[in-house]
Amino acid sequence: MERGALLYTGKAKNMYATDNPEELWAEYKDQATALNGKKKVAIAGKGTLGRQISSLLFTEINAQGMPTHFIKTLNETAMLVKKCDMIPLEAVVRNFASGSFERKFQVEHLKPLKPAVHEFYYKSDPLDDPFINDEQIIALGYADKDTLVAIHKFADQVNAYLFQRFAGIGIKLVDFKLEFGYLADGQMVLADELSPDNFRLVDAETGASLDKDVFRKGEGPLAPVYAGVLKRLQAGE
Amino acid sequence: MERGALLYTGKAKNMYATDNPEELWAEYKDQATALNGKKKVAIAGKGTLGRQISSLLFTEINAQGMPTHFIKTLNETAMLVKKCDMIPLEAVVRNFASGSFERKFQVEHLKPLKPAVHEFYYKSDPLDDPFINDEQIIALGYADKDTLVAIHKFADQVNAYLFQRFAGIGIKLVDFKLEFGYLADGQMVLADELSPDNFRLVDAETGASLDKDVFRKGEGPLAPVYAGVLKRLQAGE
Repeated sequence: MERGALLYTGKAKNMYATDNPEELWAEYKDQATALNGKKKVAIAGKGTLGRQISSLLFTEINAQGMPTHFIKTLNETAMLVKKCDMIPLEAVVRNFASGSFERKFQVEHLKPLKPAVHEFYYKSDPLDDPFINDEQIIALGYADKDTLVAIHKFADQVNAYLFQRFAGIGIKLVDFKLEFGYLADGQMVLADELSPDNFRLVDAETGASLDKDVFRKGEGPLAPVYAGVLKRLQAGE
Repeated sequence: MERGALLYTGKAKNMYATDNPEELWAEYKDQATALNGKKKVAIAGKGTLGRQISSLLFTEINAQGMPTHFIKTLNETAMLVKKCDMIPLEAVVRNFASGSFERKFQVEHLKPLKPAVHEFYYKSDPLDDPFINDEQIIALGYADKDTLVAIHKFADQVNAYLFQRFAGIGIKLVDFKLEFGYLADGQMVLADELSPDNFRLVDAETGASLDKDVFRKGEGPLAPVYAGVLKRLQAGE
């Protein structure tokens, strides 16, 4: 497998062509961003850790029968993924109040949300990824109703698995972000990445943040935190 | 019917007790506000016009079999309404892109939205009436799922009626806001008011604003605009 032309550069990953037009080389970067890219720094080892955690969780979710874009690990910082036509939405699932939700509704930090709240954000840098509801999505043609029904169901399934998986290693899955895409044959799959860049995780015992919030709030180096999450996931397998 | 104690003072109305504990006296004020109350001026005649248009439309909607809080007109500026336990949500229905929707998603002014978009805003002055989705409403306990299903259905029925009603007098119903409440017996009814304070109306021929946008944008006196809408509604009965 050879790495081909750079097709897309994102905040946490670069996507490259491969010799198979249906497969892409996803290269995880040693970079952290926050505030929609306004805060950005290089963090040695982050690409490897993000790729390792993502490979581990994509493998588990594939094994649960939920289709993802993940094919296999290529090296320390890269994985081979299926090429997707991405749906331009971020799907956020919240099990406990935190972050923008806590601030917007002035509710108690980590108040349990039952059933889990789903939110969509329309992926658009010029519009600053606005919060959007299902009917706005449909009227604006960003996704149709059947797609939204499928995303809600898929997000609940991923949440049911990951919530228990993290609970089993003493971590509260506070909230997380998912992105979905379509394969050439029309199948919808879970894409993007599954790392603490997209998860809000809290140690169930100490209440310590175990995710990108450590970076957002400037609470110390990020790589050891991600390494700790990886170690607990590996020990809990 | 005697007007009793002042129970609640809102931006456009004061609500008073009556000698019947299940009925309230709704007094429409000669006042216009915008920007969630930050812009506020007295406008002679506005209370009468808001009450007249609301009485006319509530009467029509009641006659269509959709239950509302409206009982009868009391005088030029007041109507008798059923006392409601209000649901703390503003339900917005959009037939064409305008206002905050147009700005947020950078879409063409008056782009048709099909199916009509529904949005909810949580009524809270300290939180500045935040935009909220159905799952947030349910998780925060502001309304349950059955209530939201009923509101969506009711809003579509009101929209179907009003869209045609205004089209029949040469006016585009761009968007509008509804509020709902529960009567003592548990029935959900349409409450609040039905005036150009809550509707965005555009003359189908000239494109002129026929609603509170005239005030928001400082485009001239508001009372003659409301009087024009009332006259067209009365002529089109």
